[in-house]
Amino acid sequence: MSEFDRGIALTARGGGRYEGELGEGWRIGGGVNGGLLLAFAGHALSLAAGPHRDPVSVSGYYLSASVPGPATVDTEIVRRGGSLTTGTAVLLQDGEERLRVLATYGDLDAFEGEVRTTAQPPVMPPPEQCIGVEHAPKEMIAEAALLERFDLRLDPATVGWALGQPSKEGRIQGWFRLADGRDADPLSLLLVADALPPVTFDLGLPGWAPTVELTVHVRCRPAAGWLRVVHATRNLAGGYFEEDAEVWDADGRLVAQSRQLARAPRQWGTRRS
Amino acid sequence: MSEFDRGIALTARGGGRYEGELGEGWRIGGGVNGGLLLAFAGHALSLAAGPHRDPVSVSGYYLSASVPGPATVDTEIVRRGGSLTTGTAVLLQDGEERLRVLATYGDLDAFEGEVRTTAQPPVMPPPEQCIGVEHAPKEMIAEAALLERFDLRLDPATVGWALGQPSKEGRIQGWFRLADGRDADPLSLLLVADALPPVTFDLGLPGWAPTVELTVHVRCRPAAGWLRVVHATRNLAGGYFEEDAEVWDADGRLVAQSRQLARAPRQWGTRRS
Repeated sequence: MSEFDRGIALTARGGGRYEGELGEGWRIGGGVNGGLLLAFAGHALSLAAGPHRDPVSVSGYYLSASVPGPATVDTEIVRRGGSLTTGTAVLLQDGEERLRVLATYGDLDAFEGEVRTTAQPPVMPPPEQCIGVEHAPKEMIAEAALLERFDLRLDPATVGWALGQPSKEGRIQGWFRLADGRDADPLSLLLVADALPPVTFDLGLPGWAPTVELTVHVRCRPAAGWLRVVHATRNLAGGYFEEDAEVWDADGRLVAQSRQLARAPRQWGTRRS
Repeated sequence: MSEFDRGIALTARGGGRYEGELGEGWRIGGGVNGGLLLAFAGHALSLAAGPHRDPVSVSGYYLSASVPGPATVDTEIVRRGGSLTTGTAVLLQDGEERLRVLATYGDLDAFEGEVRTTAQPPVMPPPEQCIGVEHAPKEMIAEAALLERFDLRLDPATVGWALGQPSKEGRIQGWFRLADGRDADPLSLLLVADALPPVTFDLGLPGWAPTVELTVHVRCRPAAGWLRVVHATRNLAGGYFEEDAEVWDADGRLVAQSRQLARAPRQWGTRRS
């Protein structure tokens, strides 16, 4: 079983309740990666929403920091339609709510209509010329077991921050696949939307940037192979920033788009707790 | 009392329940404007979340078409934090769920931190040189009582679609204020994020584009005066499209950002119901 499937594995307890475990291997900073949490809860909703098993739009609101260990997801389907089903999910640990999700699911294979995408994928060197995790600062890897789950190769043009020279443009991009070779699928795209380092690193602001809210639109079942991921921010202000991500598959399809609102990393003198 | 405040007026019934009326004046196409619905439910959450009375991130999932008439909002606060409060809202009419909302509220006046916004406001002629609603095709105004609530002046460069010559760029922009002169505030920004005509008009696709999901980030209390609003799409595919909106105030602040996922307008031969 792949690491990702182990990471989101669930046992159905009936009544919309599912139980699983948040693994140590998905740790980042002081908690568990937000994308993994979204995929964990998203997996429960996928089981509850069948036959509309694919996430289409998933909004997660992060309430308290998750920790490795048992976790429960309580789901409720609020509407079953002809092509879309909407439901909610509450991810709890020890009775404390970590994440609340509101989402719409469908059958991506049934989506019909021309592809008239005008967005363009990020332009970057091939994966073998990009910078893998093994080059990351040691202190970053020590705090981020998460990085060992990924084969993430960052565009050299957007890793200046790792060498003390952030571009200040507010963009990071690279190639992504899971380290154990598992192909991407709609649920794993929920993880990928939050897999890159905080874009604020590229603004010269180190430190973790806790997610307040993350909404992912899954637009297409991803082809097998490398994904290209880019995220950027244009509105760092008032102690918060938005982080817009795009995920492109090997067929050149824009398979997922996401936006999160996050708290800016703590800077001396510029932000209250 | 302003039209907008009448449009979102609520009576508290206790237990997180609020009652009001969706007015005829907010009709568009076959239903009630999605932004007005978000502001209506958002108003209930604002009352329930106090002192965190300002929307910060609001995600609405649209389940069935609303109609003018009585409406109830049932709210539940799921977390009260030091600076942010998160809750849910269910908008019902006759026991049918129209809209479910998951949102985080705060006090925008307490947000601290430099403004390092790199995004740029839309460039367009002044309001007096833009195209007001009175120039809209008659059949559009007949179906959209909503337009009479707005003093909306569209950039001539982005109204070709109204004359049978869509630019095909997938962008519409203009100046916005409420027709009765009420200044913008954080709640009204939820309306403004969905106030422009569907961006698919500019792709040469007439017809209404029902919203599946709309998430609005309110980043700043808007200054009084004209707002500039722009929305665009880059990923029309598989029968759906995303519509990204930005709202800029008279002080040049990017006060709100939103993204919605909508169903592409029905085209002969290209989309199932």
